[in-house]
Amino acid sequence: MPTQKVAPDSSRRSETARRAILTAAFDLVGDVGYAKLSIEGIAAAAGVGKQTIYRWWPSKGALLFDAFLALTTDGGQDGQGGALPDTGDLAADLKLVLRAVVDELNDPRYDLPMRALHTEIVHDPALAADYAKRLDGPMRELKKERLRAARRAGQLAEDVDLDVAVDLIFGPILNRWLQRTGPLTHGYADQVVDTALRGLRPHEA
Amino acid sequence: MPTQKVAPDSSRRSETARRAILTAAFDLVGDVGYAKLSIEGIAAAAGVGKQTIYRWWPSKGALLFDAFLALTTDGGQDGQGGALPDTGDLAADLKLVLRAVVDELNDPRYDLPMRALHTEIVHDPALAADYAKRLDGPMRELKKERLRAARRAGQLAEDVDLDVAVDLIFGPILNRWLQRTGPLTHGYADQVVDTALRGLRPHEA
Repeated sequence: MPTQKVAPDSSRRSETARRAILTAAFDLVGDVGYAKLSIEGIAAAAGVGKQTIYRWWPSKGALLFDAFLALTTDGGQDGQGGALPDTGDLAADLKLVLRAVVDELNDPRYDLPMRALHTEIVHDPALAADYAKRLDGPMRELKKERLRAARRAGQLAEDVDLDVAVDLIFGPILNRWLQRTGPLTHGYADQVVDTALRGLRPHEA
Repeated sequence: MPTQKVAPDSSRRSETARRAILTAAFDLVGDVGYAKLSIEGIAAAAGVGKQTIYRWWPSKGALLFDAFLALTTDGGQDGQGGALPDTGDLAADLKLVLRAVVDELNDPRYDLPMRALHTEIVHDPALAADYAKRLDGPMRELKKERLRAARRAGQLAEDVDLDVAVDLIFGPILNRWLQRTGPLTHGYADQVVDTALRGLRPHEA
């Protein structure tokens, strides 16, 4: 992102260019895939010079991540995505959230860009660290906050590690999407929530 | 893989060449990464012509997958990897298996090739289908077989979906490795097993 001090007009032009670049990157990766995504192509689509992009982003992966972050935080309107629902019913709230994740992952508009971003994260430790700090970390904190509320309400075991709990609830959906090991449905989301809450061991009816 | 009928000598030479190519592919991807892995490089390292490789494999991803499959099934000696341990203690057996997975994922020799293969699977639906059929499917069946034995022994709830159970137990490790969201340790493996078996809800001591 631009950090240099500039006059107001310049600054407005910079912000307009920045948004055009982010939008172009997100749209293009959905059209051509990550392997064929080029800085040249993004520059042409955004109507800026290549040098403008190189000045602001160190890599294609970093640019894509910013594009993704801009889109997802815009979606939340408040710049952070906001807290998880809390109706007092942990299972119902988690199902609502997981079903929304399923819908997003099944949306063709998001599928390719998210696979591209995921690939970059898998291969680029620096980008993974940035992702953990700027996106996964804050979102994980919101999930843990919902689980803490459930614990206070007596709906979560005292000795459960909240990071492990988040991984059990949200991990299976991501894996099934990435590896296409089965259909990604609301029914699957519900099963994951119910099974994670209740556990695999025998239980009382 | 070669399917044409050939005389015994030819057939032996083909098998030698095939193994040399698979070994070269696996070693090279660990050295240079997937993006820089080329058919030319593999051919040179294996001492064969490029055409030999193109004749047997439709893509770099398909070749890498065969290399991976050859390595992992060789490791099992019996061509299939074999059943999960069954000492009668489900938690202990699953921890043993998950700790071995953690060790493998933390092994630098496997890390890059497995990330490369994972990336190909994420982006190539045909390869994902092949992977599901030839590697994930058979391994998943072994995991489910162990869970069925646990169910017969009264250690698993009757109404648990076995695919969901496998996802809850094995998914979190894979995600943590891919996204580097936390340290991948034996302690984490144990926590995942205990939490999945017991569930997140409050339980009796």
